[in-house]
Amino acid sequence: MTYTASVVGGSGFTGGELLRLLAGHPEFEVVQATSRSKTNKTVGHAHPNLRNLDLRFSSPEELESVDVLFAATPHGISMESIDRFRDAADTVVDLSADFRLSSESRYDEWYDGHERPELLAESVYALPELNREQLPGADLIAAGGCNATATIVGLLPLVEEEILTGDEQVVVDVKVGSSEGGAGGGEASSHPERSGVVRPYAPTGHRHEAEIEEFLGLDVSFTVHAVDMIRGASATCHLFPGEPVSKSDLWQAYRGRYADEPFVDIVAGGGGVYRYPEPKSVAGSNRAEVGFELDASNKRVVAFSAIDNMMKGSAGQAVHAANIALGLEETKGLELTGFHPVGAP
Amino acid sequence: MTYTASVVGGSGFTGGELLRLLAGHPEFEVVQATSRSKTNKTVGHAHPNLRNLDLRFSSPEELESVDVLFAATPHGISMESIDRFRDAADTVVDLSADFRLSSESRYDEWYDGHERPELLAESVYALPELNREQLPGADLIAAGGCNATATIVGLLPLVEEEILTGDEQVVVDVKVGSSEGGAGGGEASSHPERSGVVRPYAPTGHRHEAEIEEFLGLDVSFTVHAVDMIRGASATCHLFPGEPVSKSDLWQAYRGRYADEPFVDIVAGGGGVYRYPEPKSVAGSNRAEVGFELDASNKRVVAFSAIDNMMKGSAGQAVHAANIALGLEETKGLELTGFHPVGAP
Amino acid sequence: MTYTASVVGGSGFTGGELLRLLAGHPEFEVVQATSRSKTNKTVGHAHPNLRNLDLRFSSPEELESVDVLFAATPHGISMESIDRFRDAADTVVDLSADFRLSSESRYDEWYDGHERPELLAESVYALPELNREQLPGADLIAAGGCNATATIVGLLPLVEEEILTGDEQVVVDVKVGSSEGGAGGGEASSHPERSGVVRPYAPTGHRHEAEIEEFLGLDVSFTVHAVDMIRGASATCHLFPGEPVSKSDLWQAYRGRYADEPFVDIVAGGGGVYRYPEPKSVAGSNRAEVGFELDASNKRVVAFSAIDNMMKGSAGQAVHAANIALGLEETKGLELTGFHPVGAP
Amino acid sequence: MTYTASVVGGSGFTGGELLRLLAGHPEFEVVQATSRSKTNKTVGHAHPNLRNLDLRFSSPEELESVDVLFAATPHGISMESIDRFRDAADTVVDLSADFRLSSESRYDEWYDGHERPELLAESVYALPELNREQLPGADLIAAGGCNATATIVGLLPLVEEEILTGDEQVVVDVKVGSSEGGAGGGEASSHPERSGVVRPYAPTGHRHEAEIEEFLGLDVSFTVHAVDMIRGASATCHLFPGEPVSKSDLWQAYRGRYADEPFVDIVAGGGGVYRYPEPKSVAGSNRAEVGFELDASNKRVVAFSAIDNMMKGSAGQAVHAANIALGLEETKGLELTGFHPVGAP
Repeated sequence: MTYTASVVGGSGFTGGELLRLLAGHPEFEVVQATSRSKTNKTVGHAHPNLRNLDLRFSSPEELESVDVLFAATPHGISMESIDRFRDAADTVVDLSADFRLSSESRYDEWYDGHERPELLAESVYALPELNREQLPGADLIAAGGCNATATIVGLLPLVEEEILTGDEQVVVDVKVGSSEGGAGGGEASSHPERSGVVRPYAPTGHRHEAEIEEFLGLDVSFTVHAVDMIRGASATCHLFPGEPVSKSDLWQAYRGRYADEPFVDIVAGGGGVYRYPEPKSVAGSNRAEVGFELDASNKRVVAFSAIDNMMKGSAGQAVHAANIALGLEETKGLELTGFHPVGAP
Repeated sequence: MTYTASVVGGSGFTGGELLRLLAGHPEFEVVQATSRSKTNKTVGHAHPNLRNLDLRFSSPEELESVDVLFAATPHGISMESIDRFRDAADTVVDLSADFRLSSESRYDEWYDGHERPELLAESVYALPELNREQLPGADLIAAGGCNATATIVGLLPLVEEEILTGDEQVVVDVKVGSSEGGAGGGEASSHPERSGVVRPYAPTGHRHEAEIEEFLGLDVSFTVHAVDMIRGASATCHLFPGEPVSKSDLWQAYRGRYADEPFVDIVAGGGGVYRYPEPKSVAGSNRAEVGFELDASNKRVVAFSAIDNMMKGSAGQAVHAANIALGLEETKGLELTGFHPVGAP
Repeated sequence: MTYTASVVGGSGFTGGELLRLLAGHPEFEVVQATSRSKTNKTVGHAHPNLRNLDLRFSSPEELESVDVLFAATPHGISMESIDRFRDAADTVVDLSADFRLSSESRYDEWYDGHERPELLAESVYALPELNREQLPGADLIAAGGCNATATIVGLLPLVEEEILTGDEQVVVDVKVGSSEGGAGGGEASSHPERSGVVRPYAPTGHRHEAEIEEFLGLDVSFTVHAVDMIRGASATCHLFPGEPVSKSDLWQAYRGRYADEPFVDIVAGGGGVYRYPEPKSVAGSNRAEVGFELDASNKRVVAFSAIDNMMKGSAGQAVHAANIALGLEETKGLELTGFHPVGAP
Repeated sequence: MTYTASVVGGSGFTGGELLRLLAGHPEFEVVQATSRSKTNKTVGHAHPNLRNLDLRFSSPEELESVDVLFAATPHGISMESIDRFRDAADTVVDLSADFRLSSESRYDEWYDGHERPELLAESVYALPELNREQLPGADLIAAGGCNATATIVGLLPLVEEEILTGDEQVVVDVKVGSSEGGAGGGEASSHPERSGVVRPYAPTGHRHEAEIEEFLGLDVSFTVHAVDMIRGASATCHLFPGEPVSKSDLWQAYRGRYADEPFVDIVAGGGGVYRYPEPKSVAGSNRAEVGFELDASNKRVVAFSAIDNMMKGSAGQAVHAANIALGLEETKGLELTGFHPVGAP
């Protein structure tokens, strides 16, 4: 059986990535992609990699009926349009921040006023490593933030194994690529100002912290830097367990947790050039890499994780969750391998 | 039916790209990948995108019997080893320069002494846009050079339509990425010396000229620059037809020639950011983009083409040719879409 | 003696480069820098390298009286404001295209309607290698376009030695960095879209052609590509002399012409990594590198040149010309050495 | 008066940077630059920015007598050659790690066996912000490690103001450019493998920790990442003071400490693109930028610092210290302004 799908906000970066994935997915047929600014233009006009896709952007005002609607719109649009989205589709997968948090109070703490707070308890956070059980049959799914996803995947085994109990200092130092800023960009995103940077763009108070706190139960010290890559998010977590841990405790925690996860690989030492998680290694794929090292002298664990922010960090996660929600094989359409060598990345 | 395949020289960049393609190809099963320097290490050790491939490099000394052997070794190795390769496989696809040219005299003009010159007339140049008719059943196939491929694809319609007759000045100014230099690299390829370059690395006398001359019948003025990208080759061809041509002549020539080609797209003007062929647009895919512009005042045609040097320029071309040689659907395993946005690329 | 100077349009890239140069120039004192968008902000707000400069942008409406006014405004502003500029300063150095060409007819051929055409004959094109004799005492000076500068410096010896007579085909294939687009940028200049490009952004009809034709007397076939660097312009000129030339003819032409030029170096072969002109080699300096290679088989000369488009290609050239106009030592304030290693660049 | 100087190890990156600085320094005359691999070649052969320097590399075996010898050799060479260096020069400034630490026991803890441990107590750590009082007259000076320098400059005010007392958790997450790896490079430093990385290359146990511990009296949790830039080191320090601090406490600490330092600027918020320390802002200059932000909810201070690893992080620091040692004006020859815009960086 084939499911019909639409992408609202198809001319942005995550919208384009959804179209790439859905076009290659054997169980989905894309029947509509909307774009307010590029209505009537071909998808290839916005996304040169998709020149061969025979599809034009339509206006977001007239939504076709589909099985699944993916919303890749800026924050705030989905909560305004959610009734229209749900009228048009049985299942809505939202890639914005609108439905990630579970309560109005948490939302208000980090964002400004939710228009449909009653839906927050209803929506399911997409990350399958976290919420695989809640996804089947879900009809309102919220894909996680890319920096939150990288962090959650990196720390989850330590929380589940109670190496982290919530009392420890956890510093999360994230590095992200420029695609996170979305298409369009302003002065700070222009090539001359953005190339070659190591730029603290959210020293404190980044909103993805809210997701980490909610879903890991951890209060983390979170800082995000922009670096010179396009795709990719890398989280380096420095943490200080209350009880001493050994390298084999760590291997056991990560292997135990991720052995059966189709999209998480453990990379921790070994030889060669790529000895720890790197965004380059996963570019273009839905894989997350996680790894760790132990700083014996001061009992610090350094946990690393790397994802492609456009894939595992948004569009790939959304399709992964949709697969599960619909009862499809969960890796379907996501068996894409990354590149080597690849740039930025 | 599934064909068994091996990759000799699997730890290099083109070897890794072959493994990426063959692992995702529904009709091939990779049974061996060799590497002299990484014998017994996993494929993922060299190619972090392929961590999930359950395969270790074996020694090139012991070749398994396969249907198709892909040789991704440095120039000179294949001609030495060709008997061993042919003993091991019914079909050999060589990605080096060893079997590209068709005669010993041409080879000697550009390289130094061929060990098996009698095979030059037998081997088939892989580029399907040029040689689709000769490929079925071929058992010795030579994938073209990446810069030659970009140039040939860019100029082929002009030659076939006799807009170029061989008497005109044709300047080909090529820009290539660092993956062309292969894994390993020396001082000039190190990141501090190679980043941000526009470096004339072959001002004159580049060996890929030989292929262009042989397969297009053109004597081109050829210059290659290294620029700051990893994957990609872009050829800008400046040519001065004897007879005036119009924009619609050009459209006709390119459309006529490439309308049915599955891996060539025409990109010539139009709106948006990506108005002409660009390596970024094709990164990771087997697509070539070709395009053109007309300089009315001095009767110059500027023809552009862009490929991913690792795909259309080597591994993708090799698999494409193997598909045809074996009678498979020719796009099989190559329906990969590139990325947007993507870096270098 | 110290000359007072002002920079109109000081918050743009060339304005910032002028401020960098003038702040370090022993004979100039910057008394005003204007910016419409950043009035009252410190210079360091726009240019982080100049945080220590104790100067705030003022409004361009109120110009102080100075000895030399440098105008680094978008094309079209200087011709509107020229009377105000000349009221404020004895010498005006304009970095836009407004006063580069020498006649209204030539201007109209390439641009749209000049407001003060009578000044075109009066203004002096700044490039000292071309116009050193006309600069002393000049009070209206127009700095050349960066791509034109690279090309003119690269071809000048061939024209003066009559290796080029104006009848030959001359293809000029230019590669430029993103700073050429100026601060601000739009979608095409955003980091995700602009990184890793080889983008034909002016396949034909680039306006800098007008300067090359006017000052070299050559009709060139000119194509400009955007590549992944920030500073730098590199011109590769492919030309076919009517009479055969030898390598030593070329050395003689270039050495004869440039032996005494303080800012032009010949780089043609030799060993090491940097064997031909490269933008990286001159980044941050006012140097131009020129070089050449000879393609014996088809009598082609390939002439290379590389500049920092912000220095030799605009601000450095402007200060160089001002030095000569005022009778200062011409290298004053421009003895800056570039970097090694350096990035993009 | 002019001091004669030599650079041992002049063909490496820091050697080249020393030559750039010394060539432009009004009080130094470079009389010798040595290179084992490039003996008899011009300095410009290794460093294209220095093509105009009329100097050839000589063998390191024959050292000329000079006032100051700068040693820019790999770790281990200086301790072997120190007697020859001191015979040749009154003052030796070493840029390797050989003489940074103050005791044999500390050295042995982090490195492998010192050949001349008795000199460790005698040598002076170069960083003027730390050791300005000990430098005058010093004849054995050790320039600090680049990552240590960035960290020390970033944390020094917090230590001196006792906001940090040595009991707190201090996480230092460093990002560095590829020039830190030096000229030559191996597979991991090749452009295809090194571009676009966020690579944990020293998750724990980086030797620069030793300098931080020694000179700040802090036990830090130190992790170094390679990112895609050439020059630059950026340290993000996450720390948790025992007593609550306010933003104005922090301003007071940093301003009080650095108001009179010629090469340290405080960048903490404000508007525009460059709101915190960035390597791009200081590229090519001897400036350090320091800044901070306060994470009210969990009492974390995030302290940022950014330097050019080739300048403040090695060659610039060495010249700065030499200026002080010789009694020169300390900013002499170091008044270089960085660039804007600039790449990687």
